[in-house]
Amino acid sequence: MALNEKQKRLCQENKTDYSDIKALYINCTLKKNPEKSHTQGLMDVSRAILAENKVDVENIRATDYDIPPGVWADMTEHGWAADDWPKIFKKITEKDILVLGTPIWLGEKSSVCSKIIERMYGQSAQENDKGQYIYYGKAGGCIITGNEDGIKHCGMGILYSLQHLGFTIPPQADSGWVGEAGPGPSYLDEKSGGLENDFTQRNVTFMSWNLLHMARALKDNGGIPAHGNQKKLWNAGCRFGHPNPEYR
Amino acid sequence: MALNEKQKRLCQENKTDYSDIKALYINCTLKKNPEKSHTQGLMDVSRAILAENKVDVENIRATDYDIPPGVWADMTEHGWAADDWPKIFKKITEKDILVLGTPIWLGEKSSVCSKIIERMYGQSAQENDKGQYIYYGKAGGCIITGNEDGIKHCGMGILYSLQHLGFTIPPQADSGWVGEAGPGPSYLDEKSGGLENDFTQRNVTFMSWNLLHMARALKDNGGIPAHGNQKKLWNAGCRFGHPNPEYR
Amino acid sequence: MALNEKQKRLCQENKTDYSDIKALYINCTLKKNPEKSHTQGLMDVSRAILAENKVDVENIRATDYDIPPGVWADMTEHGWAADDWPKIFKKITEKDILVLGTPIWLGEKSSVCSKIIERMYGQSAQENDKGQYIYYGKAGGCIITGNEDGIKHCGMGILYSLQHLGFTIPPQADSGWVGEAGPGPSYLDEKSGGLENDFTQRNVTFMSWNLLHMARALKDNGGIPAHGNQKKLWNAGCRFGHPNPEYR
Amino acid sequence: MALNEKQKRLCQENKTDYSDIKALYINCTLKKNPEKSHTQGLMDVSRAILAENKVDVENIRATDYDIPPGVWADMTEHGWAADDWPKIFKKITEKDILVLGTPIWLGEKSSVCSKIIERMYGQSAQENDKGQYIYYGKAGGCIITGNEDGIKHCGMGILYSLQHLGFTIPPQADSGWVGEAGPGPSYLDEKSGGLENDFTQRNVTFMSWNLLHMARALKDNGGIPAHGNQKKLWNAGCRFGHPNPEYR
Repeated sequence: MALNEKQKRLCQENKTDYSDIKALYINCTLKKNPEKSHTQGLMDVSRAILAENKVDVENIRATDYDIPPGVWADMTEHGWAADDWPKIFKKITEKDILVLGTPIWLGEKSSVCSKIIERMYGQSAQENDKGQYIYYGKAGGCIITGNEDGIKHCGMGILYSLQHLGFTIPPQADSGWVGEAGPGPSYLDEKSGGLENDFTQRNVTFMSWNLLHMARALKDNGGIPAHGNQKKLWNAGCRFGHPNPEYR
Repeated sequence: MALNEKQKRLCQENKTDYSDIKALYINCTLKKNPEKSHTQGLMDVSRAILAENKVDVENIRATDYDIPPGVWADMTEHGWAADDWPKIFKKITEKDILVLGTPIWLGEKSSVCSKIIERMYGQSAQENDKGQYIYYGKAGGCIITGNEDGIKHCGMGILYSLQHLGFTIPPQADSGWVGEAGPGPSYLDEKSGGLENDFTQRNVTFMSWNLLHMARALKDNGGIPAHGNQKKLWNAGCRFGHPNPEYR
Repeated sequence: MALNEKQKRLCQENKTDYSDIKALYINCTLKKNPEKSHTQGLMDVSRAILAENKVDVENIRATDYDIPPGVWADMTEHGWAADDWPKIFKKITEKDILVLGTPIWLGEKSSVCSKIIERMYGQSAQENDKGQYIYYGKAGGCIITGNEDGIKHCGMGILYSLQHLGFTIPPQADSGWVGEAGPGPSYLDEKSGGLENDFTQRNVTFMSWNLLHMARALKDNGGIPAHGNQKKLWNAGCRFGHPNPEYR
Repeated sequence: MALNEKQKRLCQENKTDYSDIKALYINCTLKKNPEKSHTQGLMDVSRAILAENKVDVENIRATDYDIPPGVWADMTEHGWAADDWPKIFKKITEKDILVLGTPIWLGEKSSVCSKIIERMYGQSAQENDKGQYIYYGKAGGCIITGNEDGIKHCGMGILYSLQHLGFTIPPQADSGWVGEAGPGPSYLDEKSGGLENDFTQRNVTFMSWNLLHMARALKDNGGIPAHGNQKKLWNAGCRFGHPNPEYR
C-alpha cells in the first residue's frame, strides 16, 4: 500500500462513514500506457486514503481514451471520427469527488489536462435536477508532479476551472511534488526524495481528508441549496447553440 | 440600493436565516479615498445581497490603511514605522466570509491585492482552536473589474491563494466585468453597460448566494471536521522562525 | 484583403526588403476544418501585412494534422500510431518568424496550443549550428481571440514559452480581441465590432511590424551571437534520454 | 566575486565592447534593508557578469524607496504624501537593460514587483523621440528565487509585462532557483545547494549574455526601427487623462 505510518493511522482512527461516496481520479499524464507515470505515484497515495475509508474510487488515464479537443458533448457530430468523452463525462456525473492529476511541462499543466477541462466546460450548460450547473454538489482537487517547478501555477488554473464549473473546493485541495530547480529524479525514481518528502505527504493527506469532509457535508446537505444559483430561473438569455458553453 | 429587480426578488424569497453570519469585503483598488473605485461599484452589488439577508457586512478599502509589505504578523518588528495589518487580520478572523475585490492592471490583480494576500499568508502558520490553519471554516470569493481583460486570470490567483490558506471556495465564487478590448468606459461610468450586463449581474448574484450557502453550511457543521488536517498532529517538523509562513 | 486603410498605407510606405524572411502561423483553434475559426480572422490581418511586404508566409491549422501529445521528437516511437509533428517541426526550423494563434476557453489558451508548445519543448535539446538552442535567432509572437476574457493571460504563457525555448520576443508581440464580459458575437461575426476595433487593429499592426523588424535585425546579425549561451560548452551535465527536454 | 570558474572564463574570453551599455537591476524583495535578500544573491551573479564586461550596472532595492501604488507618473498629485517613483523611472529611461528580481510568495511574484510594474505601466503612454513607447529599444529580463516553487509562473507575468511595455526579450531571459517542494534553506543559506546548482548558474549566465547581446544589437541598430509602431501616427484616438495608461 502506498501509505506511510501517519497516513495509515489517520485512516484507522476515522469514525465517519464514507462508504456511500464515489470518487474519480483522472491522470492527465502525456504518457501512454504502459509507460510509468510519476504523477500516478502521488495520485495513488490520495486514492489509497480514500479507499481505506471505503470510498468507491475509480482511476483512469486520459491517454487510454480517444478524446478529441472541442467544447461540445460529442465531437463525432463536429467532424471527429471517434469520441470516448461521453463515457468519461458519465463517470464524472456519477461521482462525488473529482481529482485531476497532471505533470508539469514548461511550467504549465499538460495539454491533456487542458483538453479534459475544455471537454468538461463543453457541458457546463447542462443542469442538475435542481437547475444548477451539472457539477454542483461535487468536491474537486488536484495533484501535480514534475521535476521542474510549477505546482502552484498548475493548481491555480485547475482549481479555478473546477470552481467556475460548479465544484466546491475545500481547503488545501492541491498537493504536489517537484525537485530542486534543474535536472534530477522524478517522483517515483529511487532517491528522488519524493516518497519521503514530509511536506508533499502531509499536503496530499490534508487534501484527501478535506475532499472526504466536503463530499460528506455536501451529500448530507443534499448538495448546494438551490436558491440564487439557478440559471433558468435567472434566465440570462441563454443562447442555445452558442459556441461558448457558458452562454448556451 | 444597488440591486436590480431579479436580485431583489431573490432576497425577498429567501427563507434561510443568515443573521449570525459576518462578512468582510476588502477593496484592493490602487486609488486613495475619496477617488471613485469602479471595483467598489460591483462589490456593492454583492454586499447589498448579503445585507438584505441580514448578514453583518463590513467593507474596507486597503489604501485607507498603512500596510507595509511582508510575511510577518507585525512588520513594525521588521523595520517598518507603522503597520495597520493586525487590525485587518483581526477583522478577517472574526468573519465567516471574505471577498477580495481588485481592479485589473496589465492583466494582473493589483499590487495592493497581492500585498493583502502576502500578509494573510504571513499568518497561515497560526491555528484555530481545532489545530487547523486559522482560515479554516470560512468561505472565500473575489470580484474583479477592469477596462482591459483578465477577470479569470486574476480570479485564478486569488481563489487559489484563499483555498491554499484554508478557505472553502463555493461554486462560481468569482465574478467580474470588463469592456470590449481597448479603450472605453469603466464599470460605473455612464454607458459602460456594466450595470446592465446580465452576465456580470448574474455571476455576482450566484457568487453571493453561494458564499451565503457555504458560510451557513460551515457554521452549522462547526467548520471543517478536524481529522487529517491538523498540522501539529502531523508534526511536519515545523520550523519556527522560518521565513516562509507555510514552514513555520 | 484583410487590411484597413492605415494598415495598407504602412505597407506601401515601407522601404525595407523583407523578401528573404519566412514566417509560419500556426492556428491552434479547437475546430476542425472547414469550421470557421475566428482566431484565423485576426491572424489573417497579420499574415496580410507580412505578405504585402513580400515575406514568404505559411499558415497551418494544427487540427488538420495528427499530433499526439508528448515531449519526444517522434511519438510513434512512444506508443502512438501516427505523428505529423516532425513535418511541422521542420517547417518551424526553416522559418524566421513563428506566430501562434489561439482561442480562449475558460480563460486559458487552447489545449491544442499547449500541445504544440509541449512538442516544441520536446526538441529544445536540439542545437543550431552555433551550439545554441535550435530556436535561437527566430522572432516569436501570438494572436488571441475569444468572446470571454483572457488575452493577456494566454499571451503570458505563450510568449514565456517561446522566449524560454530560444525565440526573441520583440516589443508588443501579442495582440487580441475579446468582446465585453458575457455572451456576444465572436471576432468574425457581423456586428462583433472586432474588425473595426481600433485598439485590436493597432496592436496586431504593431506586432506584425515588430516581428518584421526583429526578424530583419536577427537575420542581418547572423542570429544571436554565440557567446555565453552554448549548452555543450557549458556542459551542464546533460542527461541524454532524460524525460524532461531541458535536461537532456 | 560572485562568479564561478565557467562564468569567469566566459567574461575573460569576450571580445565585444559593452562599455557604453547601462543596466539597472531592481530587487523587489519584500524585505527592508539591512535584512538579507536571497534574491539579491542570484542577482549579484548576473550583475557581476555585466560588470566584468564593463557595463555600467546600478542595483537598487525597491523597499529602500517610498513608492505608493498607482498608475500615474507622480502619485503626490493623486493623494499620496510622497513619491520616489520619478527618480526610479528616470533611471529606467537612461538604461539599456532592465532586470527585475523577485522572491516567490504563495507561487506569485512579490507585491513590490507588481507595484513596480504598475508604475512602469503608468508611463507607457510616454514616447521616445521616434514616437514609440518610451521603453522601446531596451532589453529586459528577470531573476526569481524562493524556497517554494513558481519560477516560471513569476517569469511569465514579468516578461509579458516588459514586452507589452516595449522591451525586447532575448532568448532565455529568465533564471531562478527554488529548492525541493517543502521547507528548506533559501538560496544564500549554507547547504541550500543554490550556489552550486549548475542549472541555475547556467541559466543566469545565458540570461546575462543574451541581455548583453540584445542590448548591443539594439544600440547598434538605433533601437527598433520606427515604422508601423508609432502611436501618434496611428492615432488610435488616444484619450488623454484616461485612467488606463494604454488608452491615454
